[in-house]
Amino acid sequence: MNGDIEFLRSIAEHVEREVTARMAAVGRAGLGRKVPKGEHEARASETALIDHIAEQTILNMVEARRVEGECFNVLSEEKGYMDFGGDRVLVVDPIDGTYNALRGIPFYAVSIAIGHERLADVECGVVKNLVTGETYHAVRGKGAFLNDKKIHTAQFNPKASIFSVYLGTKASPQSYSVASLARRVRGLGAAALELCMVASGDIDLYYMVPTAERISLRVTDIAAGTLILREAGGEVYNDAYEVLDMEFTLTKRCKVIGIGDRKVLKFLEAKL
Amino acid sequence: MNGDIEFLRSIAEHVEREVTARMAAVGRAGLGRKVPKGEHEARASETALIDHIAEQTILNMVEARRVEGECFNVLSEEKGYMDFGGDRVLVVDPIDGTYNALRGIPFYAVSIAIGHERLADVECGVVKNLVTGETYHAVRGKGAFLNDKKIHTAQFNPKASIFSVYLGTKASPQSYSVASLARRVRGLGAAALELCMVASGDIDLYYMVPTAERISLRVTDIAAGTLILREAGGEVYNDAYEVLDMEFTLTKRCKVIGIGDRKVLKFLEAKL
Repeated sequence: MNGDIEFLRSIAEHVEREVTARMAAVGRAGLGRKVPKGEHEARASETALIDHIAEQTILNMVEARRVEGECFNVLSEEKGYMDFGGDRVLVVDPIDGTYNALRGIPFYAVSIAIGHERLADVECGVVKNLVTGETYHAVRGKGAFLNDKKIHTAQFNPKASIFSVYLGTKASPQSYSVASLARRVRGLGAAALELCMVASGDIDLYYMVPTAERISLRVTDIAAGTLILREAGGEVYNDAYEVLDMEFTLTKRCKVIGIGDRKVLKFLEAKL
Repeated sequence: MNGDIEFLRSIAEHVEREVTARMAAVGRAGLGRKVPKGEHEARASETALIDHIAEQTILNMVEARRVEGECFNVLSEEKGYMDFGGDRVLVVDPIDGTYNALRGIPFYAVSIAIGHERLADVECGVVKNLVTGETYHAVRGKGAFLNDKKIHTAQFNPKASIFSVYLGTKASPQSYSVASLARRVRGLGAAALELCMVASGDIDLYYMVPTAERISLRVTDIAAGTLILREAGGEVYNDAYEVLDMEFTLTKRCKVIGIGDRKVLKFLEAKL
């Protein structure tokens, strides 16, 4: 299991190096250039160069690992499901927060998890902030960590609450009510990283409940972040407040509510 | 004038070095420790260590400059107005986004401007992101720059709009309507840096209209950011949509609306 985490970390570091180098070389505009996507489950036929570079870095490392004798299948936000004959699946969002990265908002990450068939069986995950280099990781049953220091969610204090809420033309009306209840609101635009910030106690609630299905999240966005938040003492729900589970496929999407302290749910229930 | 900008940059670099070193040494919790504040205009009697360290670094450099023969007065968020017998005033927010810095949200800056009596006569300003090291600066009549490359605000496209809106229990009801009009919403919690991101075209609107007077912004928060946004082609208003001006004092606060393209105002007028 330790070997798994070392493998994920090593992938994240390679992605960081590659993206940083390309950002320096061609700038944000260059990394935003559209390139053709592989033809798999995902519908759009083009992807931004930054996503392509990050995904290719990951696939190269999966291939190198296969040559060394361990084989993973891959489910990736860009290319969809790739069956390389492995027992387990690497669930990957090559760039969490692509829009931020391309727009100059310094908040984006790489997210990678290892599991079998669904969110509930994810074994370990890594989310690395590609701006600060900070690395979150978790192993099921072993806790969650930020830069190797154990992290825990925060106790909820309504008077000093801070919620991260998805808003705008595609957000549900409910989202605005949720935002109005927090002493402070952030909207950061990178799901995996925001779940990790709930895990480390920096944020009390991550609320991503859009109206449009195509804006909702896929399992690639949240596989690592969900395990990290659960291992830190929090929970992740769908918008019916059921504990979230999702199959490893890009064809399903879900609304996502992540909390650090169960008291947040009672607070929302009482106030909404 | 060039000497002024070099002085401001040098201050910002010293603050960055000092804050980074202390963050590494004592961590966020250490930097959040409360220390006594000087007794000037500002009402609260305590400040976080991180603000104190940044302010002290700035005051030391002002003193060194005085010894070299150039004297500035200082208006600072923490210690208030300090008359050192200078002709001009350094308007300083030692840490823009203190809450973010202490909570682990990687988005905070130092903001410094040089002027005489009010926002309208600010001559130059520097805002340095203390996480990424990126430096915004402007000189009146000479344009605005990010890492020495000239920046301009973006043309407004409602379909791809991105607004940064202050929300939560202290935000005006209007703020929620504004947020609902944008394709994407961010809430980043650091006014100077958010004005700079409007200047560089990353964000279309910065909307900070709270209900509570004590949450509104002071001139120290926005002196540098306002000049940078204006020099990049944008404008800064109060909540009556009057071009913003403020005296150099900590006793006045203001609601702040920063836009890159005047079309944003027409859009808000038509939709609200």
